[in-house]
Amino acid sequence: MQQFGLAGLGVMGKSLSLNLAGKGVQLSLYNRYEADVEENVAASFIASHTELAGAKGFEDIASFVQSLSVPRCIFLMVPAGEAVDEMIHLLLPHLSAGDVLIDGGNSFYKDTERRCMQLLQSSILFVGTGVSGGEEGALKGPSIMPGGSAEGYAAVKIFLENIAAKDKTGKPCCSFIGKGGAGHFVKMIHNGIEYAEMQLLAEVYDILRWTAGYEPDKITETFNWQLDTNVNSYLLEITARVLKKKEGNSFLIDNVLDKAGNKGTGGWASIAACELGVAIPSLTAGLFARYQSEFLAERQAAAALYTIQRTTAAVDTAALFDAYSLARIVNHHQGFHLIDAASQAYGWNIDMPALARIWTNGCIIRSELMSSLQDILKDTSRILLHPSIVEIVKTQLPQLNHILALAAINNAATPCLAASAHYLHYYIQEQSSANIIQAQRDYFGAHTYQRKDDPSGKKHHTDWKI
Amino acid sequence: MQQFGLAGLGVMGKSLSLNLAGKGVQLSLYNRYEADVEENVAASFIASHTELAGAKGFEDIASFVQSLSVPRCIFLMVPAGEAVDEMIHLLLPHLSAGDVLIDGGNSFYKDTERRCMQLLQSSILFVGTGVSGGEEGALKGPSIMPGGSAEGYAAVKIFLENIAAKDKTGKPCCSFIGKGGAGHFVKMIHNGIEYAEMQLLAEVYDILRWTAGYEPDKITETFNWQLDTNVNSYLLEITARVLKKKEGNSFLIDNVLDKAGNKGTGGWASIAACELGVAIPSLTAGLFARYQSEFLAERQAAAALYTIQRTTAAVDTAALFDAYSLARIVNHHQGFHLIDAASQAYGWNIDMPALARIWTNGCIIRSELMSSLQDILKDTSRILLHPSIVEIVKTQLPQLNHILALAAINNAATPCLAASAHYLHYYIQEQSSANIIQAQRDYFGAHTYQRKDDPSGKKHHTDWKI
Repeated sequence: MQQFGLAGLGVMGKSLSLNLAGKGVQLSLYNRYEADVEENVAASFIASHTELAGAKGFEDIASFVQSLSVPRCIFLMVPAGEAVDEMIHLLLPHLSAGDVLIDGGNSFYKDTERRCMQLLQSSILFVGTGVSGGEEGALKGPSIMPGGSAEGYAAVKIFLENIAAKDKTGKPCCSFIGKGGAGHFVKMIHNGIEYAEMQLLAEVYDILRWTAGYEPDKITETFNWQLDTNVNSYLLEITARVLKKKEGNSFLIDNVLDKAGNKGTGGWASIAACELGVAIPSLTAGLFARYQSEFLAERQAAAALYTIQRTTAAVDTAALFDAYSLARIVNHHQGFHLIDAASQAYGWNIDMPALARIWTNGCIIRSELMSSLQDILKDTSRILLHPSIVEIVKTQLPQLNHILALAAINNAATPCLAASAHYLHYYIQEQSSANIIQAQRDYFGAHTYQRKDDPSGKKHHTDWKI
Repeated sequence: MQQFGLAGLGVMGKSLSLNLAGKGVQLSLYNRYEADVEENVAASFIASHTELAGAKGFEDIASFVQSLSVPRCIFLMVPAGEAVDEMIHLLLPHLSAGDVLIDGGNSFYKDTERRCMQLLQSSILFVGTGVSGGEEGALKGPSIMPGGSAEGYAAVKIFLENIAAKDKTGKPCCSFIGKGGAGHFVKMIHNGIEYAEMQLLAEVYDILRWTAGYEPDKITETFNWQLDTNVNSYLLEITARVLKKKEGNSFLIDNVLDKAGNKGTGGWASIAACELGVAIPSLTAGLFARYQSEFLAERQAAAALYTIQRTTAAVDTAALFDAYSLARIVNHHQGFHLIDAASQAYGWNIDMPALARIWTNGCIIRSELMSSLQDILKDTSRILLHPSIVEIVKTQLPQLNHILALAAINNAATPCLAASAHYLHYYIQEQSSANIIQAQRDYFGAHTYQRKDDPSGKKHHTDWKI
């Protein structure tokens, strides 16, 4: 009998299969019959990879399930959404109590909650897991964020830990996040943080390219200086590489259309923030920049009407990377705040330092900063309140302010740097301007307000017109 | 028989009743029996208001419905959510085909869609309508945004137009928005724009108070200068009044706790933006500032750790109000863009100039700008692309940039001004930095990208590592 099943041989499913096989796992692979493909997809995939010598391929669901030792462990790598429900529906008649299904797609966490509950009725253990690292990560070692059935996870832990990336101490980047949709929730926030991390790099590029007037190779050079500093990250590394890529004598980046894609799932983190009442303006700025970029024809029409010329100015690159560093801290602060809020709201008891640890390798947002968060989050779930961070912020804030002023004066679009800075200003000052909001609300809607001289929190109302 | 029924005598229900009675409408009023209130709420409300001499009060639902002439027109003024469904459930057995229910609460537009469909099965015509203007607006003339059943609206139009505010030409601020949830959708966006409008005023106050170092009465004076300009608005007026309110020798605003409330419904507009893929960073900045304000204890802890002192500097108030004016234009641009996107996605065919018209009086966001949008939206649904706006933006953009630089350097939290400015920079420039995002995505996830030199839109993939 085979040890482990995997259903769904897309890019990620194939890479994970090769990863599992490389660890000596005896695999059964299933892919549904595809009318436009002559051969059995699973069988031909196995035949073309010597690493998969001991694996068995199926396109009949019953034979696939029956080939597995009990309790059966099956990794679902099908597209998020209805395809997951369809695959579960297909598998269910052939499963027995105690079998484990692992959904490794980017499923919506509320769907995962629902599937956990539904499958429990058939005593099937459902594990909804985030998997980050793209194709290469899946092949060589992704970061894995399992949630759902703890009992189910216990049965598949050995496989998931085996294929996961390893942190600096050699421990696998895989740790149980919490019941229900917890695993997919943190993967969603991972992606939200990722959007902002990517946008911040785009803004740093934008300032260096169009304000400082650097050519792409000079920007690569500038980025490369940072690879030994505490702003180093996987995304910084790949952006440096992207910028030096040439086609003949021209930089390829100049031929890439500035119209970014998002998978529709990009908005989920911001929706969760709205539902939980947590401000994540840095993450949302990353999202909204993508949305704006998609309206390319409209932006071109606007550019023709406005004919605003970008002005160049000297840019202090040290200040720029301090600003970037600080904006990243704020971005991570917001992301972990939202995870903490969800953990409390849904009773997930998420271990925040453990979560930071499994994000130190394998995933897209791995970075020096993430490594340092493993310890910081042991003391507080609010990164900006940690003494070591306070010292950094105090040093870097004037630089962030300086860069923002420079960006504004020179018409550079830096929504994520700006959102991060103003979140921070709002967060650390003694007196916010929300007293105005409360007075306005009480004026027009009699919504009442609390008073500074009444610590009881009693609600007061004033007739402001008199 | 009575002409018009109203169920739910909260603050808004009472005010609308008095408004209707003042127009000579023969009313039946219903309020459910409340165990902790001795008397019949509806009857005692009528008894205490001579304007309601011809009205009848009920706490029995059957008698309430039977008192109305057919087809019955009943305004529901109960809290949004389950209470609306409960009230419908209570009424339904007593209604006949062709009767009209009008939900005037702040219902979620998807609930309104559902109720329209459900009630259609019983041939009950459901009108979901936004009502804006607070208690005073409800009494003296609100802005009314009806949607849902067009046939139902035809039957109640005379009543709604009668009680609505009037625009400058004397036309009622009430116009059918579209089928299904269209009325409640635009009310939701109205509130999103309102959040940002309030936040922008709070930021202008913040700069004048803590950067310029003005006392509240001097800020009132500064605001009052603007009441004859094109930034005049209801919210500006009330903020000026709020700032001059004194208790003894001190300004009341200094005793208002800076912890703003939101009703949970505040996040809906941002959620809709995420679902429809439209960037509304100005609106979301208003929302997120409220969320941040709610974490008061955490902000106080941060202030104690950071001890950042605000620095004062000369503020060019003309530049400040240009910046404010421009941010408001951007805010309205985003709100109307989102309405346009929803109108297309849901087939609502919303008449945008008509919508701007009914927002010129009665509602919280009435303003000189809104008056000017009536014509602007006849030419384009994208405000920033209108020639008259382009001229304004070109003049005011340097001032907005200048104010943002000043705010940043002096640690002022101006998230909504900043979000508006960077949205604008992104919108009007020829080259955004989204080419970086696309290259990154193609690097780590093989998500492909489009090329500038390939207008076919074909998707390209590059191995960036080589």
